[in-house]
Amino acid sequence: MRIGSPAPELDAVEWIGPPRPLAELRGRVVLVEVFQMLCPGCVSHGLPQAKRVEEMFPEVAVIGLHSVFEHHEAMTPVALRAFLHEYRIRFPVAVDRHDGDRIPVTMRRYELQGTPSTLLIDREGRLRQLAFGAVDDLALGAYLGQLLGESGPEPEPEIVLEPETAG
Amino acid sequence: MRIGSPAPELDAVEWIGPPRPLAELRGRVVLVEVFQMLCPGCVSHGLPQAKRVEEMFPEVAVIGLHSVFEHHEAMTPVALRAFLHEYRIRFPVAVDRHDGDRIPVTMRRYELQGTPSTLLIDREGRLRQLAFGAVDDLALGAYLGQLLGESGPEPEPEIVLEPETAG
Amino acid sequence: MRIGSPAPELDAVEWIGPPRPLAELRGRVVLVEVFQMLCPGCVSHGLPQAKRVEEMFPEVAVIGLHSVFEHHEAMTPVALRAFLHEYRIRFPVAVDRHDGDRIPVTMRRYELQGTPSTLLIDREGRLRQLAFGAVDDLALGAYLGQLLGESGPEPEPEIVLEPETAG
Amino acid sequence: MRIGSPAPELDAVEWIGPPRPLAELRGRVVLVEVFQMLCPGCVSHGLPQAKRVEEMFPEVAVIGLHSVFEHHEAMTPVALRAFLHEYRIRFPVAVDRHDGDRIPVTMRRYELQGTPSTLLIDREGRLRQLAFGAVDDLALGAYLGQLLGESGPEPEPEIVLEPETAG
Repeated sequence: MRIGSPAPELDAVEWIGPPRPLAELRGRVVLVEVFQMLCPGCVSHGLPQAKRVEEMFPEVAVIGLHSVFEHHEAMTPVALRAFLHEYRIRFPVAVDRHDGDRIPVTMRRYELQGTPSTLLIDREGRLRQLAFGAVDDLALGAYLGQLLGESGPEPEPEIVLEPETAG
Repeated sequence: MRIGSPAPELDAVEWIGPPRPLAELRGRVVLVEVFQMLCPGCVSHGLPQAKRVEEMFPEVAVIGLHSVFEHHEAMTPVALRAFLHEYRIRFPVAVDRHDGDRIPVTMRRYELQGTPSTLLIDREGRLRQLAFGAVDDLALGAYLGQLLGESGPEPEPEIVLEPETAG
Repeated sequence: MRIGSPAPELDAVEWIGPPRPLAELRGRVVLVEVFQMLCPGCVSHGLPQAKRVEEMFPEVAVIGLHSVFEHHEAMTPVALRAFLHEYRIRFPVAVDRHDGDRIPVTMRRYELQGTPSTLLIDREGRLRQLAFGAVDDLALGAYLGQLLGESGPEPEPEIVLEPETAG
Repeated sequence: MRIGSPAPELDAVEWIGPPRPLAELRGRVVLVEVFQMLCPGCVSHGLPQAKRVEEMFPEVAVIGLHSVFEHHEAMTPVALRAFLHEYRIRFPVAVDRHDGDRIPVTMRRYELQGTPSTLLIDREGRLRQLAFGAVDDLALGAYLGQLLGESGPEPEPEIVLEPETAG
């Protein structure tokens, strides 16, 4: 996917935690952590980093996306719930939809190479970073600092109904 | 369980990898890493440590024991196989047997408090250490060094059949 | 020192490496790592972090400030040169001036509490962060990202001499 | 130096802390951490490991040996005292003697290649391990466990003077 283009919506078959479609997050900086529960790099690096972002930057919306492309029989929603409980992951997690292909739908939309992948979306809803593998904390912090420093979209003009004046 | 008493056999419903009952390991120092695949401390500390012991001490027999006492529906044998594959755990793993109780059989036999637990068994088949939680590398190394330095059981006297001498 | 106020100049008795007075760095984001060579937190955290900032953010000017307030007889300039060589610190280091007080001059100017301290100065020469102790990489990255995203000072209007036209 | 041969005495120009010549440590397992105060690997690995050994194994005698072979003008005894204070190193440290050669005397006796080096000496006063560079905790623990498991030297027969009996 092209950096700078509008971020496609997540296609969630279900949410664990309150649903957070991207459409509702316009005006906020968003971090999407794409993971599989049995992916060692996600468990040791990507997910703990996303948790720290959530704790340190309350103004960033952190969400998880569980995009399973291997061992489908092991990484079921029931197993995912147990995993999120044990690892104390409290941000909302979308379960990526399968449509028959081995690679789930949202993962294909974003043309991701694997897990972990970290997506950053700006206040205007544009994809601004897409990193596969371990991202350095200093670099991730700098991306977030830059996006947080940007002003958001112009507020939509409010439609004010002209009061009808009695003649 | 009393330190120094004979280590009870593992009650494995199945083995992933070649079976390694304790009875066959007499004469060797044995490390049994008791874990659950969704236990964060096992994934971050206990299992990587057991892997390093296996690599550094070829004379130690390292085996895993998957003793599930929570989230049974998530930690099935099929999920365990995917987990062992992703985490590149190559030592043999026994799946602890359930007999209706929430706590599996071998875990009850050893009176374990949880996971990870690390058991050390000497050349004579006696339980010599039983640690719950993270064990420091220096301490684990010292236990192993001591057990490896001990001589094993007296070899059984070989029964030599006296050749019949022709008269 | 008040965050947002102009950053006072460093009072260097000498520089190890090319001199980099703050006055010459206007227009750039500056990180000043204040340290003592025998301060464990500086050696384990502050200085390695400053080195990583230097490597990852070529647009940030990283400089060291050696502000000795204890063990003066041990942390001499000759010892500092050996230290910088062994620890492969290549950014320029100012040696803070002593005027008779136990605390050196620049350290007093900035009202620092100890070492390590990390100062961030924006393109306009204002002090924007002043942290004592270990700073988290994510947080430092975010400060840097924000400062790098800000435009610098308006360029001074160039004075163009009107060519005299011969009458 | 040959592993297994008697460990030569340390040639200390002075001790920081109570003197602990090897001759007085017969019957104990000894760890000698050879370091330079401006050696990064000593500061990040060797010395912290020696401190942990001291804390975990009260029956091991841990001593430091400051063997300076470079930057002699920076690593003076006064600087060393400041260093040991800041890094909270409380085990006794011998300052290796210089006799005109760049390499100090004890370092030459043991034919060391550099710092950090870790020496292990058994209860009988024999050198049993000599490692240059970072030693893994598991491996160091195993060496210690083995040496601690060995019985010491036969106690010297006490010479009892037969009281002269008056005739």
